[in-house]
Amino acid sequence: MTDQDRIYMAEAIQLANKGLYTTDPNPRVGCVIVKDGCIVGRGWHQKAGQAHAEVNALLEAGAKAEGATAYVTLEPCSHFGRTPPCSNALIEANVSRVVAAMQDPNPLVAGSGFQKLRDAGIVVEYGLLQAEAEALNPGFVKRMKTGLPLVRVKLGMSVDGRTAMASGESQWITGAPARQDVQRLRARSSAIITGSGTVNLDDPSLTVRANELGLENAEAIAERQPLRVVVDSEGDITSESKLVELSGKIVVAMAGNKGIEHDLKNSDQISFKSFAADNGRVDLKLLLSWLAAQGCNEVLIEAGATLAGAFVYQQLVDELWLYMAPTLMGSRARPLLNLPIDKMSQQIPMKLLESRVVGDDIRFIYQLETE
Amino acid sequence: MTDQDRIYMAEAIQLANKGLYTTDPNPRVGCVIVKDGCIVGRGWHQKAGQAHAEVNALLEAGAKAEGATAYVTLEPCSHFGRTPPCSNALIEANVSRVVAAMQDPNPLVAGSGFQKLRDAGIVVEYGLLQAEAEALNPGFVKRMKTGLPLVRVKLGMSVDGRTAMASGESQWITGAPARQDVQRLRARSSAIITGSGTVNLDDPSLTVRANELGLENAEAIAERQPLRVVVDSEGDITSESKLVELSGKIVVAMAGNKGIEHDLKNSDQISFKSFAADNGRVDLKLLLSWLAAQGCNEVLIEAGATLAGAFVYQQLVDELWLYMAPTLMGSRARPLLNLPIDKMSQQIPMKLLESRVVGDDIRFIYQLETE
Repeated sequence: MTDQDRIYMAEAIQLANKGLYTTDPNPRVGCVIVKDGCIVGRGWHQKAGQAHAEVNALLEAGAKAEGATAYVTLEPCSHFGRTPPCSNALIEANVSRVVAAMQDPNPLVAGSGFQKLRDAGIVVEYGLLQAEAEALNPGFVKRMKTGLPLVRVKLGMSVDGRTAMASGESQWITGAPARQDVQRLRARSSAIITGSGTVNLDDPSLTVRANELGLENAEAIAERQPLRVVVDSEGDITSESKLVELSGKIVVAMAGNKGIEHDLKNSDQISFKSFAADNGRVDLKLLLSWLAAQGCNEVLIEAGATLAGAFVYQQLVDELWLYMAPTLMGSRARPLLNLPIDKMSQQIPMKLLESRVVGDDIRFIYQLETE
Repeated sequence: MTDQDRIYMAEAIQLANKGLYTTDPNPRVGCVIVKDGCIVGRGWHQKAGQAHAEVNALLEAGAKAEGATAYVTLEPCSHFGRTPPCSNALIEANVSRVVAAMQDPNPLVAGSGFQKLRDAGIVVEYGLLQAEAEALNPGFVKRMKTGLPLVRVKLGMSVDGRTAMASGESQWITGAPARQDVQRLRARSSAIITGSGTVNLDDPSLTVRANELGLENAEAIAERQPLRVVVDSEGDITSESKLVELSGKIVVAMAGNKGIEHDLKNSDQISFKSFAADNGRVDLKLLLSWLAAQGCNEVLIEAGATLAGAFVYQQLVDELWLYMAPTLMGSRARPLLNLPIDKMSQQIPMKLLESRVVGDDIRFIYQLETE
């Protein structure tokens, strides 16, 4: 493939990224159609249930699509979902060549879209800017490959690694720009997991708030709220929380049948699910599998040191997002993560993916090894 | 002053920086002599007792110095020290103009060098690239102005702010490039302070090792070893430490007369000093004042959470140098700094001066407010 191919694919990736906050549970996909050295169609997938990227690009290209090359960031689908398969649309439009950045990550259907195109006489190539295309949909790719979502733990901390005073006092460690950044992180997430302890102590809403996103299409983004999940092994949460007051689906993840003692009742808004582990706690991996089965690609954990620590210790976390404020909170304050480590050989190594200044704070993204 | 002046001064600052590791207790100073748009002499101060920057530059310029402009990073001295005053040398060489980056920071002599030059009919200007010139000698400037050295605390830590396992196990948190960087930090320091607990547990040498500096003139640099200071309020250290085995001066800072119970005795190498505070501990500010009086410009604290925490809590620390390794050490591990803080209103705000990747680690320099 040529440098020119690369340029068109980079454009398709940029288009795909426009769907960052809205395509869930679908992947973010972009498409560029090129005829005689000119882009004649651009499209991206905007929202589940609406047209896919290829269809939008073909619509713009019209008759010019005939004999053109289509650049797509993901293998065109070959099956009927909520919309007809994109491979059909490309065939009907008589494109002569399709360049894809990556195969469908689902091993059960990978290659079938390409095959359908080839069967119709279309030249198919793939693997161009594949890493960049995968980075558009880290959660979707992981879910398709493993049956688990991409899991991020987000924490705000002091330079000495503390998240709150011993009393629980913590507002505000980080500055307004970091809080805006967290709003965007929530907005791209399919679900947010917290613990009953955090709900009872901090009373968070865990919602995406349009006026705090600082994005042009904030209202449209906030229409889709991430599923809120409360891990409540011991049936601790009460109905007196902001979480319940605000609209939006909530799942209370319990261990066994303790739900019957709950203040809260099953409703359109709240559902109770049991994910019992042998130790009487919620089986966190089972919970994540269930969320993946519900179509959750990217899951964000906003919880205290105990629950967040348990996810990390069980090797269920892909990324640690830390917002480090320029302050010292001291040795009596709460630890970042409860991790029962006694020897240097047990420490948990990570890989720095990114560090970035966000207002007065620094944002780090560390990658962890999952089991 | 012109852009051309700025370029020559920038060159003088670069020259001064060549003395970073060797001029102590003197300041790092550079000088450029310019005649008819050409640099005719360059000099820097290399080592206490040897020629000053101006004299070295004049030596290179020879007769061309007559009618030239001398750019110096610091006001030329007007008094006899170990060498004759530089202002005399400039006058005798018949330079016609002197541009200095900054005044002498010692309020008692500031301006007297300039006056002497002016009295001899030389045009004098100053204040060009002053911030950059001050940054060459942060410790010297602070000591001259306040009678206290610049104090840095250096710590290696995990992402969750831990420095060692509960057992004390800690080698190695950070990688080899960070350890090399610490060697250079030691090499620019006048003194290194540690605590008796660290000496007894980790048995550090606290020396500058030529083969670990990774610098061209490493052997010459390691000739000057920083003064090693052990804070030993309770007379805990024994003669069985690397610190004592290796040559180089050591001061044991005690509280009161407990020194007489010490295993160690006064010698050419080791001296005992009392800096008693009311609480039976070493008075840390008194210790720092004494070090400044001995000519210490930059003092490095390499100690555990208790002693380093005490320096921070008493607002005696200017900079926190942190080497953050990509690892989690868990909530049982030792804290970064023992700081008795209970409320968010008591947290210790800092200012990020710099963050830099060093191998797999990140080095942060935070500025603290001193009292």
